[in-house]
Amino acid sequence: MSRDSNYDHHISIFSPQGRLYQMEYAFKAASSASGLTGIALRGSDTAVVVTQRKVPDRLIVPDSVSHVFNITPKIGVLATGMIADCHSAVQRMRYEAADFEFKYGYAIPPAVLAKRMADLAQVNTQSASMRPLACVLMIVGVDEETGPTVLKVDPAGHYLPFKGTASGAKEQEATNFLEKRVERIENYTFEETVRTAIVCLGSVLGSDFRGNEIEVACVQGKEGRFRCLTEEEIEEHLNAIADDADA
Amino acid sequence: MSRDSNYDHHISIFSPQGRLYQMEYAFKAASSASGLTGIALRGSDTAVVVTQRKVPDRLIVPDSVSHVFNITPKIGVLATGMIADCHSAVQRMRYEAADFEFKYGYAIPPAVLAKRMADLAQVNTQSASMRPLACVLMIVGVDEETGPTVLKVDPAGHYLPFKGTASGAKEQEATNFLEKRVERIENYTFEETVRTAIVCLGSVLGSDFRGNEIEVACVQGKEGRFRCLTEEEIEEHLNAIADDADA
Amino acid sequence: MSRDSNYDHHISIFSPQGRLYQMEYAFKAASSASGLTGIALRGSDTAVVVTQRKVPDRLIVPDSVSHVFNITPKIGVLATGMIADCHSAVQRMRYEAADFEFKYGYAIPPAVLAKRMADLAQVNTQSASMRPLACVLMIVGVDEETGPTVLKVDPAGHYLPFKGTASGAKEQEATNFLEKRVERIENYTFEETVRTAIVCLGSVLGSDFRGNEIEVACVQGKEGRFRCLTEEEIEEHLNAIADDADA
Amino acid sequence: MSRDSNYDHHISIFSPQGRLYQMEYAFKAASSASGLTGIALRGSDTAVVVTQRKVPDRLIVPDSVSHVFNITPKIGVLATGMIADCHSAVQRMRYEAADFEFKYGYAIPPAVLAKRMADLAQVNTQSASMRPLACVLMIVGVDEETGPTVLKVDPAGHYLPFKGTASGAKEQEATNFLEKRVERIENYTFEETVRTAIVCLGSVLGSDFRGNEIEVACVQGKEGRFRCLTEEEIEEHLNAIADDADA
Amino acid sequence: MSRDSNYDHHISIFSPQGRLYQMEYAFKAASSASGLTGIALRGSDTAVVVTQRKVPDRLIVPDSVSHVFNITPKIGVLATGMIADCHSAVQRMRYEAADFEFKYGYAIPPAVLAKRMADLAQVNTQSASMRPLACVLMIVGVDEETGPTVLKVDPAGHYLPFKGTASGAKEQEATNFLEKRVERIENYTFEETVRTAIVCLGSVLGSDFRGNEIEVACVQGKEGRFRCLTEEEIEEHLNAIADDADA
Amino acid sequence: MSRDSNYDHHISIFSPQGRLYQMEYAFKAASSASGLTGIALRGSDTAVVVTQRKVPDRLIVPDSVSHVFNITPKIGVLATGMIADCHSAVQRMRYEAADFEFKYGYAIPPAVLAKRMADLAQVNTQSASMRPLACVLMIVGVDEETGPTVLKVDPAGHYLPFKGTASGAKEQEATNFLEKRVERIENYTFEETVRTAIVCLGSVLGSDFRGNEIEVACVQGKEGRFRCLTEEEIEEHLNAIADDADA
Amino acid sequence: MSRDSNYDHHISIFSPQGRLYQMEYAFKAASSASGLTGIALRGSDTAVVVTQRKVPDRLIVPDSVSHVFNITPKIGVLATGMIADCHSAVQRMRYEAADFEFKYGYAIPPAVLAKRMADLAQVNTQSASMRPLACVLMIVGVDEETGPTVLKVDPAGHYLPFKGTASGAKEQEATNFLEKRVERIENYTFEETVRTAIVCLGSVLGSDFRGNEIEVACVQGKEGRFRCLTEEEIEEHLNAIADDADA
Repeated sequence: MSRDSNYDHHISIFSPQGRLYQMEYAFKAASSASGLTGIALRGSDTAVVVTQRKVPDRLIVPDSVSHVFNITPKIGVLATGMIADCHSAVQRMRYEAADFEFKYGYAIPPAVLAKRMADLAQVNTQSASMRPLACVLMIVGVDEETGPTVLKVDPAGHYLPFKGTASGAKEQEATNFLEKRVERIENYTFEETVRTAIVCLGSVLGSDFRGNEIEVACVQGKEGRFRCLTEEEIEEHLNAIADDADA
Repeated sequence: MSRDSNYDHHISIFSPQGRLYQMEYAFKAASSASGLTGIALRGSDTAVVVTQRKVPDRLIVPDSVSHVFNITPKIGVLATGMIADCHSAVQRMRYEAADFEFKYGYAIPPAVLAKRMADLAQVNTQSASMRPLACVLMIVGVDEETGPTVLKVDPAGHYLPFKGTASGAKEQEATNFLEKRVERIENYTFEETVRTAIVCLGSVLGSDFRGNEIEVACVQGKEGRFRCLTEEEIEEHLNAIADDADA
Repeated sequence: MSRDSNYDHHISIFSPQGRLYQMEYAFKAASSASGLTGIALRGSDTAVVVTQRKVPDRLIVPDSVSHVFNITPKIGVLATGMIADCHSAVQRMRYEAADFEFKYGYAIPPAVLAKRMADLAQVNTQSASMRPLACVLMIVGVDEETGPTVLKVDPAGHYLPFKGTASGAKEQEATNFLEKRVERIENYTFEETVRTAIVCLGSVLGSDFRGNEIEVACVQGKEGRFRCLTEEEIEEHLNAIADDADA
Repeated sequence: MSRDSNYDHHISIFSPQGRLYQMEYAFKAASSASGLTGIALRGSDTAVVVTQRKVPDRLIVPDSVSHVFNITPKIGVLATGMIADCHSAVQRMRYEAADFEFKYGYAIPPAVLAKRMADLAQVNTQSASMRPLACVLMIVGVDEETGPTVLKVDPAGHYLPFKGTASGAKEQEATNFLEKRVERIENYTFEETVRTAIVCLGSVLGSDFRGNEIEVACVQGKEGRFRCLTEEEIEEHLNAIADDADA
Repeated sequence: MSRDSNYDHHISIFSPQGRLYQMEYAFKAASSASGLTGIALRGSDTAVVVTQRKVPDRLIVPDSVSHVFNITPKIGVLATGMIADCHSAVQRMRYEAADFEFKYGYAIPPAVLAKRMADLAQVNTQSASMRPLACVLMIVGVDEETGPTVLKVDPAGHYLPFKGTASGAKEQEATNFLEKRVERIENYTFEETVRTAIVCLGSVLGSDFRGNEIEVACVQGKEGRFRCLTEEEIEEHLNAIADDADA
Repeated sequence: MSRDSNYDHHISIFSPQGRLYQMEYAFKAASSASGLTGIALRGSDTAVVVTQRKVPDRLIVPDSVSHVFNITPKIGVLATGMIADCHSAVQRMRYEAADFEFKYGYAIPPAVLAKRMADLAQVNTQSASMRPLACVLMIVGVDEETGPTVLKVDPAGHYLPFKGTASGAKEQEATNFLEKRVERIENYTFEETVRTAIVCLGSVLGSDFRGNEIEVACVQGKEGRFRCLTEEEIEEHLNAIADDADA
Repeated sequence: MSRDSNYDHHISIFSPQGRLYQMEYAFKAASSASGLTGIALRGSDTAVVVTQRKVPDRLIVPDSVSHVFNITPKIGVLATGMIADCHSAVQRMRYEAADFEFKYGYAIPPAVLAKRMADLAQVNTQSASMRPLACVLMIVGVDEETGPTVLKVDPAGHYLPFKGTASGAKEQEATNFLEKRVERIENYTFEETVRTAIVCLGSVLGSDFRGNEIEVACVQGKEGRFRCLTEEEIEEHLNAIADDADA
């Protein structure tokens, strides 16, 4: 380790083991910066993202604290990591989406947007001008052909569609939770998808939520639009979960 | 700490812990440079900023010492930190506001201006050409739809609306003071808002003021304009506070 | 070694022994990044690539995990290494292929594409602006004159046509396997070629596959097009291999 | 100190304490370079600058040694620090003044010129291309609305109007001298202002002057123009001071 | 040596002894990279290059492994060194040849091409942007006036016409072999020239060849064109050599 | 000193004491490079420069060794320091003079030219692209209004008119010599001025000259032109000096 | 020395003693690179350069080894140093000569060409982009007014006309030889000039030459053209020298 520590001062050189340290540190920065955990899940005709809404300071206007962003009417993103970097990525996504629609005359498919963001992230690992962005993007959107979809883009430039995935502080625990249910998830109804995501988040954090303590956003069906659930809707789901648990 | 100290000589590389040291040092520079404390508060239809007017030198023309700046008729800012950096940020805010109005035909909303300044700050943490600005911006302005609003932008590129917030040397103490009253603040009248802000500043600094020792600026109501209170107005509020205390 | 370690912090300077360290580290990164092994083989009128489809996470949509990419109707590539770098290379290959066809009015021959990618890789070892890409490209395509062909391009800028070749974690073992059969390979039918490639992969990994655990793509004949085999087709070949083994 | 000394080799990075060392060294360079002291004072309708005219070498043509520069008919500046840097700043001031008048059709107000120079100085503390200029500017000029005014700009990008101020080797002593009289200074007549400035300089330097040993320049009244006093005028003031002292 | 080792990290600075280390390392890289040896020889009306065709891997398509490149109908080159650098140099040679013919209306003479490549190599030893290319070029071509000619260009930017020369691993031994025969070589017929080159290569490598183990290329007479000998032709020469030896 | 030595490797950063080391080293280089001493003197209506003509090598064509350069018909310069840097400065002076005349329609006054050269020198102490020029310029010329004038420009960007000055190896001694006579110099006739300059040079060097061992150039009167004295003229002055001494 | 060694890693910074190390190393490189010695001499109406023609390798085509280059019909140059740098300088000289003639309509005088090359060399000692060229140019040419002339340009940017001069390994010895004869040289006829140059070279190298072991080039008379002497002509001179010695 001591020898290698010299290789991590430059953005784009390999260590003798072929590692790119600055890229790895960006992952660490992305997962530790906010301390939040995010869950994304795809049911039979639903894609949903759930994350904590942890207002660090009671003085902050609570509904301004959000990691869920609208990109196009049919695509949204849950961005975890350094929040300023997240905003920068979201801004770029909106630009790329608008640019695509302007050029080609139809809305950008979620997978194309994810690929584009991943390609841009790769550049920051190869050329020395800019550090990688410390943020992980979990994109949910409606593909015109295949319906709701969940994609994850990370600072190394990976992008992959998922049945369910997680990011942030408790990424590993949430992934384990979801893996056990992976078979069933694909056939989940809207309600089951949303509730499983919420239950998963609660389980890894070891706590119950109230409606204003989490953010839930989703797309539903091929005609659906990306929207955030209201506090009331979330409360309903929480109640249903509680009822299930009691039952 | 000793090992890590090498990561802080470059503006935009991560340490192995995923930290950006130059960004953190910019916060320190921003809060320690002037030694002042600033308070921003939003009442029911008022947004107010209060700060000390500490003239370091009796030879300085006293009313030239100000950390409160006019951006548009409806937006003002209290900038704390290195004063030259503050001027640079204020200049940019004025340009961005004018540019927005020119492009879109209506005045820039305070939140849009805050977002823009935050995005610009983020760039200085990612690319290596310029150090981050050592200044914290507390923007007060009138949003056409939601009325008076308080926003804070910091060197890392965060921006958030607040019910009340503080910056500078005694930021933590002032925040504690405000947090205890957060419930009531939202319903404060103009007078209550201004006076609470003043009382808060006096409390954390452990001192009484005279009218020329603090700066108070505010927007009031949806039609209000950003303006600084005159020394007489401030004296009136100080007297009222004193009367309250005596009562 | 200790003395030399200083020469490897810059992308494009020689060590006293005339070595380019960053280029060598790129090879290490390319072979260790994904942990996969890829095989490419050319029979009498067939060129085939085979690799593992190792889905690292059961939550990932399985068919999104692929290292085989379509470049033109007649050219495909198996890219192993850092996946983001692979995408970057694939993107460039598609651009170069389209650009060639636009300029010269006929499809780019596989060897010309390989040469172009190798020349671009060489630049990253000579000038200091960008690190080499950590990826090895195994191109299969149909040459209008000589029929199916297999070419390999590496981070140092080498490109060579092969009768059979391998890349990734078990490159050496696979190469040994193929070398023993090199005489016979040239006369293989389509089926023999595909099955030998699969057997080779199984042999070096010491494991049996199911149809969804490997990727197989090929071109066949002068009129053939690059296509990936379906899971069913792969199963058929696996069964045939099993039958052979039993026989 | 030893640890921190590494942060001062780059023009624009923060030390862990949030300090910008090169900027601080520029102050030191500005105050120690020439060894001179300058005084600026604003009376009721007069602004005056006084400094030593120390000809380092009897062979130099004496009246070529001057730190007082004409910028526009109504604005002048006393620049102390590295003399070549002072010339560079003066050149820029003249350009900025001409440019302003060309663009807006009226003469640049002194405060606007001071702000512009401060903004330019700030850039040299933020971007790495140029070191800060080692010079302090004390601007005296006539504002069309408020009359004679004194402003000081330093290498950090601060600019402030003063009732009286000093710069250079004995800055602190001179400031103390002026602070004691600050109340009275505002009501001084032209003669009182000029003489107080001269007395102050003599006091901190512990010496008497002759008419050719100091430079005095002033603006007087709203219609006044910036001009340097002749040796005879200075002698007259010196005599008057001597008479007062004797009386 | 230890002191001096610091001078070799930059592409274009002198050591105190006036040496350019990176240039010297490029020579080492050029001669050690491929491990091959090349011979070039000029007879009375023939210029020939001979080198080993060492296929490092039985899986490589053997005739793709070549260090001999066609530049124009009348000029060819044997490039030894890092193969990717060789390709880069060959590409440039083709471009320079085409550019010359386009500009001046007649084919580039071999010496002009050699001079141009040497000048380009010199730039890489003087300016810091690119490392020198690790390759040695042995150009054979027909000069319209003087007939067949052999030229060598090295990474330092030297270029010289030779009666006979060598490059690569056994350069010194081959040079010694040729020097002993230098008087006679000038009068050699085509057959003698080719065979002497082959014998020289065999002698320094201490081994016999088969027709597919060496590459032979030549130009013959003023009207001749650059061409590679076929395997059959090479075999014929090898047989003739064997007969001579037996005789 | 040891600590500080790190600050002198960059062209434009301050040491903690506010010093610019590279600028100081440039002075040392300027005064030690040629080992010569130059004298410039202004009499009542004469300006003269005198320096040694030390031909380092008897093989050099003697009259090619000169440090006196013609800039315009009315301006000349004695440049001491690294001779290549001197040529570079002279070239620039000629360009600036021509450019001025082209732009404004009258010949550049000597003081304007000196100021321009000083400003250009200042840039080399502030921005990092070029080292300061190691040369000191002593300009003699005719000002249309004030007549003959002597100005000195140094690597730091200072420029000053002098009654008499010196540069180079014995600068200090020559300055002392001239200071003693400073009162009288102003009233010197042409002959007195020239001879005093020669005597001064001889005195500090402790040697007698012959006509070809020194260079003398002058301007005389308002209509005068810059010209170098011939060997004969110099001899005459030397004889007159000798006669004076004998008398 | 040890302390100073840090100043020599950058092309254009001064050491504390005001030295430019890279420039000094360039001199060393120029004189040691080729190991040759060159002599240039100017007689009454002749300018001649003489140098060794040392063919390092018997395989090199002997008449390709030359350090004498034609620039214009009336100007030639003997360039000693790193041969690739020499070619680069020669190329530039040809360009400058052609450019001059194109711009001004008459051939470039030798002194103007020398000055231009010296100015270009100076740039490489001041700005950091390129190392100085390791070559010394001895220019011989015909000046339309003064006839044949000899000029020397070195890596520091000096250029001077000489009656006779030398460069390379034995520069000092040759200079001593010529200095003893400097008086007589100026009146030498063509034959005397050529022979003295040859004798000088032979004397410092302690060896006799044959006609093909030295290069001799000259210009003769105001109408003369630069030309290299043939081997026969050189032999004649050598014989004459031998006869003289015998006599």
